[in-house]
Amino acid sequence: MLIALDWGTSSLRAARLDADGNVIEERHSGDGILNVPADGFPAAFQRAVKGWRPGASTLVLASGMVGSRQGWLEAPYCPCPAGPEELAARIAWLPDAPSHVRLGLVPGLCDLQAGVHDVMRGEEVQVFGALELLGRDAGTFVLPGTHSKWVRVRQGRIDSFSTFMTGEVYALLRKHSILARTMAEEDGPLDEPAFLRGVLHARHAGSLLHGAFSARTSSLFGQLSAQVLPSYLSGLVIGEELRAQQLENSGDHLVLVGAPALTHRYQLALGALGVHASCLGAEATWRGLWSLARTLQTSA
Amino acid sequence: MLIALDWGTSSLRAARLDADGNVIEERHSGDGILNVPADGFPAAFQRAVKGWRPGASTLVLASGMVGSRQGWLEAPYCPCPAGPEELAARIAWLPDAPSHVRLGLVPGLCDLQAGVHDVMRGEEVQVFGALELLGRDAGTFVLPGTHSKWVRVRQGRIDSFSTFMTGEVYALLRKHSILARTMAEEDGPLDEPAFLRGVLHARHAGSLLHGAFSARTSSLFGQLSAQVLPSYLSGLVIGEELRAQQLENSGDHLVLVGAPALTHRYQLALGALGVHASCLGAEATWRGLWSLARTLQTSA
Repeated sequence: MLIALDWGTSSLRAARLDADGNVIEERHSGDGILNVPADGFPAAFQRAVKGWRPGASTLVLASGMVGSRQGWLEAPYCPCPAGPEELAARIAWLPDAPSHVRLGLVPGLCDLQAGVHDVMRGEEVQVFGALELLGRDAGTFVLPGTHSKWVRVRQGRIDSFSTFMTGEVYALLRKHSILARTMAEEDGPLDEPAFLRGVLHARHAGSLLHGAFSARTSSLFGQLSAQVLPSYLSGLVIGEELRAQQLENSGDHLVLVGAPALTHRYQLALGALGVHASCLGAEATWRGLWSLARTLQTSA
Repeated sequence: MLIALDWGTSSLRAARLDADGNVIEERHSGDGILNVPADGFPAAFQRAVKGWRPGASTLVLASGMVGSRQGWLEAPYCPCPAGPEELAARIAWLPDAPSHVRLGLVPGLCDLQAGVHDVMRGEEVQVFGALELLGRDAGTFVLPGTHSKWVRVRQGRIDSFSTFMTGEVYALLRKHSILARTMAEEDGPLDEPAFLRGVLHARHAGSLLHGAFSARTSSLFGQLSAQVLPSYLSGLVIGEELRAQQLENSGDHLVLVGAPALTHRYQLALGALGVHASCLGAEATWRGLWSLARTLQTSA
């Protein structure tokens, strides 16, 4: 049995996997690391696995921000390029884990390009899981979110990656900027035409600093209603992320990993630019942690 | 005598000019249109010109957001290309102005490019003033601010322009984003090396969505201190605005118009990219309104 934890900033997802990597049970709670006091991690863990009867023979692997300096125990970043072996070798094992389980915190990755660092925690596990689920060892993987990651894989190892603050900048513009004044208070369902209009304008605008102002003027000149403006802004911001990529080079290998509501938007946007992308969800995380567990067994 | 008003969102500047366009007296208050009740414009005007004894022969010209739908009286946008003549012809004259003055609200400009509108209010007057002060009739004019404007002038008329939400996005990232967590609370004096590092990284990053994350990792890896991070972020955001320009085409005609603290940053950033720029301040607004007043006299 493997207990897999996807432990992020705002939430904690836990899964119990059988020997073949099948998910037997999955749970979700709000025990993200920002919601857990510094000494509250053992209790949060016990809540997450209640009834699963973990013992000294149980392997628990946790990925995400729980391995950061603000988490349970710091698992220092592993430098790129890195594959599952490098990751497994750098797992931070918790001394005195609750219920005497073997509890390991998966390190994040760091990438140094032209003197500038980039980092991620948790997404590396999703990428390795996606590679296995798809039977691939190369390609470009996109993990949309508050901080989207574009991950380039060669020969089964993460070669390099780049972060885009897309979700966070969307939320800032949506809630705190002048653009918020002419938008409906609640995000309605996605308006696809407005979204795609935003995606295409982002390419033309050349920078979000310029493109975003069109959300204001589209309202001023009555071209877009308050209801569809959030979809347009979403298209502008996601379109900006796509504008910055060398899409012609990644073409047929693009894989989106994340929550369906978000990967669907990226799939739509990429489709409008003529790029095909397939989608994976939470299963990539569980498969990634399970694959790490196997790597540990074979290297033990 | 001309009374010139630069009446914006958050502040009101007033100047009394003699027949040669010299500023006799200048005042500044917080009576921006957002701080004045809908029926409070006459009183705010009287406060601004107190003691200047305006009468039926006095010409008052006001530029800025005071001519917007949320202002005193709407002066609808004038389409580009537009010169002082088009602007003068579309001035909105206030019926029943206080003290029987002739009070005109200068229209803003709008520019339609590929189905997308751009707008400005007030900057057009600064540009026409700058042209006169410099004895020019062409060039690229940059007006940095909450919403920076890049204005292209040919044969004395504004041909087209583009807005960049640079100042606003800086403030959002500075105060409300994850980047704020590792920054000193107060902006200290500009740290030039950190600022220029940001400018150069912005060019390399290709999009602010990506580049901004380097403010986080530079802190994480101890490369930049909390004190200099605001300067670095400022460089990233201004650098992003510059990245999106065709600087090689505007080269020797670049003129910065605005508050010295801001135009100085742009001058530094442009210098690092090998582009020379000269600076003008508030004098451009007064000269622009004075020049409009003359246009009115000759066309009367």
